[in-house]
Amino acid sequence: MRGLSPEQLGIMLVALALLIGAARILGELARRLHQPAILGELLAGVILGPTVLGALAPQVQAMLFPASGPNATVLEGIGSLAIVLFLLVAGMEVDLSIVWRQGRTALKVGTLGTLIPFAIGLGGAALMPTALGRQVDADPLIFVLFLATAVAISALPVIAKTLMDLDLYRTDLGMVVVSAAIFNDLLGWTTFAVILGLLGSSSAGLGIGTTLVLTGLYAGLMLTVGRWLMHRAIPFLQAYTHYPGGVLGFAVTIGLLGAAFTEFIGIHAVFGAFIAGVALGDSSHLSERTRVMIDEFVSFIFAPVFFASIGLKVNFITHFDVSVVLLILGLTIGGKLLGAVAGARWGGFASRERWAVGYAMIATGAMGIILGTMALEAGIIRQRLFVAIVVTAIVTSGLSGPLIRRTLAARRPQRLLGLLTPQLFVRNLSAETSRQAIRELAQAAAQHAGLDSERIEQLAWERELTAATGIGHGVAIPHARLNDVRQPVIALGISEAGVPFDAPDGRPAHVVFLLVTPRDDPSVQLDLSAEIAHIFRDAHNLERVLRAANYTELRAALIRGATKS
Amino acid sequence: MRGLSPEQLGIMLVALALLIGAARILGELARRLHQPAILGELLAGVILGPTVLGALAPQVQAMLFPASGPNATVLEGIGSLAIVLFLLVAGMEVDLSIVWRQGRTALKVGTLGTLIPFAIGLGGAALMPTALGRQVDADPLIFVLFLATAVAISALPVIAKTLMDLDLYRTDLGMVVVSAAIFNDLLGWTTFAVILGLLGSSSAGLGIGTTLVLTGLYAGLMLTVGRWLMHRAIPFLQAYTHYPGGVLGFAVTIGLLGAAFTEFIGIHAVFGAFIAGVALGDSSHLSERTRVMIDEFVSFIFAPVFFASIGLKVNFITHFDVSVVLLILGLTIGGKLLGAVAGARWGGFASRERWAVGYAMIATGAMGIILGTMALEAGIIRQRLFVAIVVTAIVTSGLSGPLIRRTLAARRPQRLLGLLTPQLFVRNLSAETSRQAIRELAQAAAQHAGLDSERIEQLAWERELTAATGIGHGVAIPHARLNDVRQPVIALGISEAGVPFDAPDGRPAHVVFLLVTPRDDPSVQLDLSAEIAHIFRDAHNLERVLRAANYTELRAALIRGATKS
Repeated sequence: MRGLSPEQLGIMLVALALLIGAARILGELARRLHQPAILGELLAGVILGPTVLGALAPQVQAMLFPASGPNATVLEGIGSLAIVLFLLVAGMEVDLSIVWRQGRTALKVGTLGTLIPFAIGLGGAALMPTALGRQVDADPLIFVLFLATAVAISALPVIAKTLMDLDLYRTDLGMVVVSAAIFNDLLGWTTFAVILGLLGSSSAGLGIGTTLVLTGLYAGLMLTVGRWLMHRAIPFLQAYTHYPGGVLGFAVTIGLLGAAFTEFIGIHAVFGAFIAGVALGDSSHLSERTRVMIDEFVSFIFAPVFFASIGLKVNFITHFDVSVVLLILGLTIGGKLLGAVAGARWGGFASRERWAVGYAMIATGAMGIILGTMALEAGIIRQRLFVAIVVTAIVTSGLSGPLIRRTLAARRPQRLLGLLTPQLFVRNLSAETSRQAIRELAQAAAQHAGLDSERIEQLAWERELTAATGIGHGVAIPHARLNDVRQPVIALGISEAGVPFDAPDGRPAHVVFLLVTPRDDPSVQLDLSAEIAHIFRDAHNLERVLRAANYTELRAALIRGATKS
Repeated sequence: MRGLSPEQLGIMLVALALLIGAARILGELARRLHQPAILGELLAGVILGPTVLGALAPQVQAMLFPASGPNATVLEGIGSLAIVLFLLVAGMEVDLSIVWRQGRTALKVGTLGTLIPFAIGLGGAALMPTALGRQVDADPLIFVLFLATAVAISALPVIAKTLMDLDLYRTDLGMVVVSAAIFNDLLGWTTFAVILGLLGSSSAGLGIGTTLVLTGLYAGLMLTVGRWLMHRAIPFLQAYTHYPGGVLGFAVTIGLLGAAFTEFIGIHAVFGAFIAGVALGDSSHLSERTRVMIDEFVSFIFAPVFFASIGLKVNFITHFDVSVVLLILGLTIGGKLLGAVAGARWGGFASRERWAVGYAMIATGAMGIILGTMALEAGIIRQRLFVAIVVTAIVTSGLSGPLIRRTLAARRPQRLLGLLTPQLFVRNLSAETSRQAIRELAQAAAQHAGLDSERIEQLAWERELTAATGIGHGVAIPHARLNDVRQPVIALGISEAGVPFDAPDGRPAHVVFLLVTPRDDPSVQLDLSAEIAHIFRDAHNLERVLRAANYTELRAALIRGATKS
């Protein structure tokens, strides 16, 4: 009855646990070093794959991740499912209405930012196919088209995240870049679908013409009739089935069906899932809660499995060829910068912003890696070109943020949780009055930041006298603005008994934040105060903070409070 | 490179889409008919499996769900993953502290409610092994132990849900039943682990003694040291990794590792996942948000795949044997009622409550089905006994709620969303005064419920004059209590312009609920008012309700508002 023996089942579970566990740990490490999480996830696969584990303990590696047999098949099936769900979610993040709203400027950046790198990729691939690593028996036309697409594609999720991190997402510049990236994504995946159509790998034995017509029909119908039907269906599901499970099951089913359809007609499943995601995600009825639920589960369980399994497939050391890596990096960054900067110039952006737009568009990220994987599997490219594409994807994703920050002199917004440290956490305030609480926290802040404690106390107290800083809900936010401070410093004290801070609701403060901020940047203090007030508006969060036995638990409680929207 | 051909990948995606889609649709239908969702999910598999599709279109069935080959292996792998995650979540729902708090009474009900049905199952299995469908070459001792466990196990998730539906979960009776079920679950799974140990199927070639010692060590260490370590790790993960993705990845990784360990030592993976879930879920640091996220994804994507795939394995018509079904049903219901009622009597419950406790414990639900599946795969039982166990699981789960309701004369609580109907939704109130609004809604209510419109209007208006019913946030809840009304009736009107209802915040009411409730049941009106107030405390919900173009969108908006906690 059972196809998998207990041993095989056990190995499958260990293999999955190792992939998810290692990918998550290294993904978090990458994030802490301000690198894209995908870098860590790939690295997990490199470590568990032939590159490291295979070199150190070949038998263990072959047992855990065999190249063939039932375990290999299951892992491949789960990997395929993961990538289909990942593209479904990526599609759901595409908001077509943003493109319309941005109008011509977005179209200009999108068109030039896609066509120029595409043309440059086309030229590069045509001039040096063998140097770049074309598979010997691959069709030259298909190879050239593929490389141009791989060089021209951009990774919407990476771009959106980079812009959010820099607080640029909601600006004109941010919206133009996002719309251009959406445009680019749609064009890129359609081109890739055409390439796969040219390959003629349709399992239903269709000719290339039929495949292309069906692809066009699928995308066209899905984005019009399908989109309209789903927009109708979602409120119905929310109203009459389990919420949010009903919509969740619906979204996954639609994504799988779309993926299966495009796979059958001879282009890859990911295209169908992506278009289904665009059609689904466009519905304003789809609640934030459902989106977040699918997104988190796919991003933190399925995506790590897929990206780590890429590292399993290829030996990244033996196939690392410096010249190919540099060529692909050069073609990608050069082509995109040229195209996007030209587009931004045409769209009327000032010189600095033009470059920012260009830098924002260079990331090929997950999309580049996925395209590369498909091409490797379809026998279009060789492993050394694949490795170069993966390296390019990671390097461009990591460079994008710092380059924009430099160009615009933009700063990462100062967030409460980025500024808290264990040294500035006073678990038990002994203070009985607001003055004493301010003194205690001023001493902590001064010691840590090398400032003058009395000066902080004096300024904070003067401020306190003009208007008390108890904001109610058991929280007070005394503050001092200093000339000689460059980074905000926050000292946080907890008082079980409570300290009177003259709050509007009459309650004593159990949590006291002393903010010491630069005098020339008044907005920092207001932003931080607003963030604190937002967290403590929900009374549960005060309880959790008071229950925290140490700094880690305190931090966890604040993050829970800050994330729950 | 690729093990699955495009065709096989396409088939895998279609097969998964069909399983999830059909299981969700039939699961929702079952829910609407007040039956357990699992009934619908199993039915989906029966329809897609040999029983129906296989009889109608054998080729299609064999293509979509082949019995062997790569697609069968992948589906089996995903099914195993699904059941491991399902048991992880089931374990997370177990709250050991409840058992301690309920103390002796819970222990009494738990002990007798587990041991008596176990003894009865033992006796039944020993007396008529062949009639019940023992596999010919199965060890008699193992068969007897298994059947006793299958008859004695109870389904904590089903029991908890039944009690919640009847508003009994937080009562003494509810807590005793839940603790008894937890006790029963732990004992049942441990016994099953022992049975599998006796089978000696350890892939590591361990003797039965070693297997049992390792099982005990695993459970013991996981529930003490492991539990303590996870309780420490969770705040750390929440504080320093992506929230809630970090904890999500951690929980799944731990579950998979636990499952792999127990699979290797020769007992089934589900035991390891279940115990890991208990240890994880016990941490008070694990946020509700993370729990709900795992729970929803597993319950609505993975569980349907597993339960539907059960229907694929067996022909439920050819293996349906009335006498075996009746025997198993009789042993299960008889044994459990006897045990639980005796335990409740010993614990000091009054006569009526004793029976309610007994009825609450009869559901074997998902746990019975999973045990049956494992036993079938291990070659302990034959298909006709498997079918009888599945049928018993569904019948007992479906009977439990109605029997308790009857015994305690308990009523399903009247919830807002259960009482709204499209006929009583007035999209555009023409009223300009509160009196006019009450009249308009009274007419709608009277027409639908066959009541006297003027009488409703008069009573509601008299009530309105004693104290205005505008509760602020743009909502008013006028109400009338009538003698001749048995079911509450709610008419809901929307006014774009707003109707003055003398609210404390001075805002006119855009949403007016007219509640008509039975005079002899004042709590209904208070409960409904509280529910309405809760929904509209969040201003976004008023916006969504006002944007609703029709009844379905209105209902979806209210559900979103009511579910978001």
